[in-house]
Amino acid sequence: MAQTPEYAIIVAGGSGSRMQHDLPKQFIEVAGKPILMHTIARFYKYNPAVRLVVVLPQEQLNTWRELCRKHAFKLFHMTVAGGATRFKSVKNGLGAVMGEGLVAVHDGVRPFVEVETIRAAYEATAKYGSAVVAVSPKDSIRELTEEGSRAVPRAKYKLVQTPQVFQASILQKAYEQPEQEHFTDDASVVESIGETITLVEGSYRNIKITTPEDLILAEAFAKEGSL
Amino acid sequence: MAQTPEYAIIVAGGSGSRMQHDLPKQFIEVAGKPILMHTIARFYKYNPAVRLVVVLPQEQLNTWRELCRKHAFKLFHMTVAGGATRFKSVKNGLGAVMGEGLVAVHDGVRPFVEVETIRAAYEATAKYGSAVVAVSPKDSIRELTEEGSRAVPRAKYKLVQTPQVFQASILQKAYEQPEQEHFTDDASVVESIGETITLVEGSYRNIKITTPEDLILAEAFAKEGSL
Repeated sequence: MAQTPEYAIIVAGGSGSRMQHDLPKQFIEVAGKPILMHTIARFYKYNPAVRLVVVLPQEQLNTWRELCRKHAFKLFHMTVAGGATRFKSVKNGLGAVMGEGLVAVHDGVRPFVEVETIRAAYEATAKYGSAVVAVSPKDSIRELTEEGSRAVPRAKYKLVQTPQVFQASILQKAYEQPEQEHFTDDASVVESIGETITLVEGSYRNIKITTPEDLILAEAFAKEGSL
Repeated sequence: MAQTPEYAIIVAGGSGSRMQHDLPKQFIEVAGKPILMHTIARFYKYNPAVRLVVVLPQEQLNTWRELCRKHAFKLFHMTVAGGATRFKSVKNGLGAVMGEGLVAVHDGVRPFVEVETIRAAYEATAKYGSAVVAVSPKDSIRELTEEGSRAVPRAKYKLVQTPQVFQASILQKAYEQPEQEHFTDDASVVESIGETITLVEGSYRNIKITTPEDLILAEAFAKEGSL
């Protein structure tokens, strides 16, 4: 199906501190395998020809290699050492993307992303140049102000997930600029060079495993057969 | 501890449609008991003298009575028939609150709220007149605009949970105004009469059980001993 080359940069920079776990969160096992392996498998399920770049902290590269051996994990991927921030890590991963194509950036700890969501994001990018997966918030939202906070209309906001997919040239150009504090995801980086972002509907199942609660949910999803 | 009377209006208006379940979500069993019973029990755990008003759709009142009998559920509470919207349901519940005191409004399907969170919310209300439990978003946020959408700084937003606690007189005055479309929670109702809202830190465990994914997480929390 995919004639334009499709890349995926899987960013896994976690240290495990917020997770109260001795392993970095991407290496914690769910359903018998490190989370990161499930995430990689999702992209291969979508497109067996995907070109996969996994960004990990330098000091975790050996552990990852050992884990891949231990689990006989054969799905091909490059590994790249990350930087001190997410911005620097994505930038390093992007260095491994050569030539034109569509580049997805995806969190290493979002293993439940549906194949249909990945497909919708690449397809929207082929049409519009960029696509970001997002869902509507279930909760009411308040904006912090100088005086305190105020209610804002929830229907006007979206919570951003990954994958976030871009034309390679656009993403590369965006990552040439200096890092700014308000860059919390790739969409904000790309937007700041004047590109518009297309939103693709995500799913509440596409959780980012960040806290101990998320890990409980992940195990429950896995038991249900979601991995 | 509590010398000022403390009320809690537990709003349970769900029909079960979003849940893809034949039971209204508040009646679905988790750890062997309807979710709503767990929620009620939390408020009694915080304060055995709490005055509890449960708002349910008119057509569910009989089922609820039967469920209470079946489960030998003895925690005292009034029941009040709800209205067509959340605003009308809270307003009906508020009709059962007589005299001064602190009134918490809480979602019937948030059974995991910590006793400490409930306490913090009542205490802040005793001091400041109103308090709303909220957490920081884990995801990046985009605001929908006429042209599409734009990144907004995540650190400037809070996701609102319940309980939301108010001085009875303030809440009553707020609910005298006509309902408006942007009222998605009690804080927005109270704020629109010029009151300021104090935020109290919530917890990611205080989930609102709304979707099938939430139910899976609830079962997992329960197995872990969180109920």
